[in-house]
Amino acid sequence: MNNWRDLRIDNDHFKADFEALAHIGATGDGGVNRTALGEAHLAARAWLRERIEAAGLESLQDGAGNHSGVYRSTNEGAPHLLLGSHTDSVPAGGRFDGALGVLAALEALRTVKDAGLELPITLEAIDFTDEEGTLVGLLGSSAAGGKLDAHSLRSPRGGRENLLAGLQRAGLTETGVLNAARTPGSLAGYLEVHVEQGPRLIESGNDIGIVSAIVGIVSCALTFKGRADHAGTTAMDARCDASLGAAAFTLAARDIVMRDFPDCVANAGRMIFSPGAFNIVPQAVELWLEFRAPSDAQLAALQEALLSAAAEAADNYGLELEIDMRGAMSSAPMHVHVRNAFATACGRLGLSHITLTSGAGHDAQALANLCPVGMIFIPSTGGSHNPAEFAEWGACVNGANVLLQAALELVFSE
Amino acid sequence: MNNWRDLRIDNDHFKADFEALAHIGATGDGGVNRTALGEAHLAARAWLRERIEAAGLESLQDGAGNHSGVYRSTNEGAPHLLLGSHTDSVPAGGRFDGALGVLAALEALRTVKDAGLELPITLEAIDFTDEEGTLVGLLGSSAAGGKLDAHSLRSPRGGRENLLAGLQRAGLTETGVLNAARTPGSLAGYLEVHVEQGPRLIESGNDIGIVSAIVGIVSCALTFKGRADHAGTTAMDARCDASLGAAAFTLAARDIVMRDFPDCVANAGRMIFSPGAFNIVPQAVELWLEFRAPSDAQLAALQEALLSAAAEAADNYGLELEIDMRGAMSSAPMHVHVRNAFATACGRLGLSHITLTSGAGHDAQALANLCPVGMIFIPSTGGSHNPAEFAEWGACVNGANVLLQAALELVFSE
Repeated sequence: MNNWRDLRIDNDHFKADFEALAHIGATGDGGVNRTALGEAHLAARAWLRERIEAAGLESLQDGAGNHSGVYRSTNEGAPHLLLGSHTDSVPAGGRFDGALGVLAALEALRTVKDAGLELPITLEAIDFTDEEGTLVGLLGSSAAGGKLDAHSLRSPRGGRENLLAGLQRAGLTETGVLNAARTPGSLAGYLEVHVEQGPRLIESGNDIGIVSAIVGIVSCALTFKGRADHAGTTAMDARCDASLGAAAFTLAARDIVMRDFPDCVANAGRMIFSPGAFNIVPQAVELWLEFRAPSDAQLAALQEALLSAAAEAADNYGLELEIDMRGAMSSAPMHVHVRNAFATACGRLGLSHITLTSGAGHDAQALANLCPVGMIFIPSTGGSHNPAEFAEWGACVNGANVLLQAALELVFSE
Repeated sequence: MNNWRDLRIDNDHFKADFEALAHIGATGDGGVNRTALGEAHLAARAWLRERIEAAGLESLQDGAGNHSGVYRSTNEGAPHLLLGSHTDSVPAGGRFDGALGVLAALEALRTVKDAGLELPITLEAIDFTDEEGTLVGLLGSSAAGGKLDAHSLRSPRGGRENLLAGLQRAGLTETGVLNAARTPGSLAGYLEVHVEQGPRLIESGNDIGIVSAIVGIVSCALTFKGRADHAGTTAMDARCDASLGAAAFTLAARDIVMRDFPDCVANAGRMIFSPGAFNIVPQAVELWLEFRAPSDAQLAALQEALLSAAAEAADNYGLELEIDMRGAMSSAPMHVHVRNAFATACGRLGLSHITLTSGAGHDAQALANLCPVGMIFIPSTGGSHNPAEFAEWGACVNGANVLLQAALELVFSE
């Protein structure tokens, strides 16, 4: 079996599928609204099952609702190499995020099947449930990765009622979701292609970004507490003004990240002022802070630097500081074998590539402890999570071909 | 008539009235809830009319609902010297703010009447409507001062429906309110005693503060506008983060006031972040700014300095700035004759005094263009506009006696 290196996906097939899926839940402005387990998302999955069956692939669904098309190895009981992404979107999201990765995976399997390749391991194109988190976030991949516990389902970020309604609509149960974990050894890896949702590939002029790590994320609410006073009768130097601590910290956080943590980011996404009137000195300001780092060591160092800066800002203005940790997700390094397979595939296809981190979360991080995982990005414009998100079609085809060739590299190197 | 300089208010009468009024709308924690033209406020005014009539004074009410007790001059058509304040409160306010000034005025007139003084001008103890602004703000004094126009009533800060409901409850009409202006020459002046609501008298150890000016106030919303971006995938130096302009301006505004405008204050009372999520770089921050100065020249200079600093902060971070002026109130210098009369009265009563500005707005500023106005403060603790607001009873008596003696100084110096 030597001709597999010449295999390429079928552009017409791939494009027809992409355009058909972009119509399901379309918002009329180039975007889609396919929130997880909503009607439009379930319609997209029904369409996907038809496409899987039309391609002559085996159709599977697990207890977490993850949908797969399977091309079996000639070895019974062979592990599965997963290729995939998700068909759900944020509310009023773009048509590339997630959909591209699922359809590239489906097209890769169809190409392999149509070529009649006999494989030592099984290929599985998978559509993970609720990557975007309108219900839980990485729900399907966490369930498959064995990282989901009952607590996550009891107080999900989208609200308990929405989760239960979504599960019922999809014919799923909590028990089924909690029992969807794949067993260690059953998976040979997980590969995903995704739009970058950032400017680095466009700016560097490269075709493919090979992800080195998905960043870890910490979110917390910092509350600077002073004293409410009449803003007319209280002299400036007699105030304990909570806004000053929040403002000084916002500027300090940016300086710290830019100076000492060049691979990291931090964001002061919101401030909530109490009592919040023109004529009352702010008693308290709750600042919503999120920061990300490509390794857990950097994430811990960044957290220490930022929380120290917050304490210093509070102290400088006579304020108290309360810290409420809201969430933490470890960073996930991408596996070197997978990264090498992507690089080999790029070389074979004549595509330039750079290595970069993923500042956004993806399903791969939920599977990183279970099997070798890896991701590539293709150049995109228009940002992220909005209808303006866009990738040139040629870039989508490049991504699908790199996915196909990297998967075959891994399959035949096993 | 030489014995008038020995007149003092009746402590028992004054105290009984103060305690009775503090019960009307009492919130059980030392405070009162008597928002303008609400049921408790109307009950307080019904009680006040009874007290005016029981004192043998003439009871008047004008088209703006301002309630008065009048002690007539022996000269028909003599101008009125107003003494007063307001019986309305902020929601969950204190029992001294406003009530003290109305009852000190009533007590001063009762003292003069009981002494049988014959006066060359008429004394009028007045309770102005809606000083606090749950409906319009300085409604009654602005109407009396001829400063109210129909526009103020069409979009009042408390909402049009609340204003109409309040007027109807009190048996008032918009036409009546707009026709309540006193004529030039009909007023000999306006005097008010009020709790300081700030720490200067307590800290300086003085009995009385003679107000030199009521500050002018400007309020505006400054909107710093950048670009919403994914807070994970957008590098720090590629952002247009609206929070940075708002934060830098907040710190700069304080520095400018403390360094260049020592008699002024500024407050960043609220920031509203859009879209306001942990993981989205802030696209816009609307900052609610208010600043006050004791003269219009300083107010204009302060406004120029602050708005320049806002433009500079926006520019430094690649942001746009939108300025929405929300309100402006000129400063009101207190009349030198009234200030002198207060100083003479303090000397006669053996009370120490200092001169200070009023950082808060008061009814006097709405009358300053129509007649000589003046105010005194008595020491108070517990801040302002809350149930903890407190003044020692002896200080209240001092304030009432200074009001009485200053009024008689002006009456007999005419």
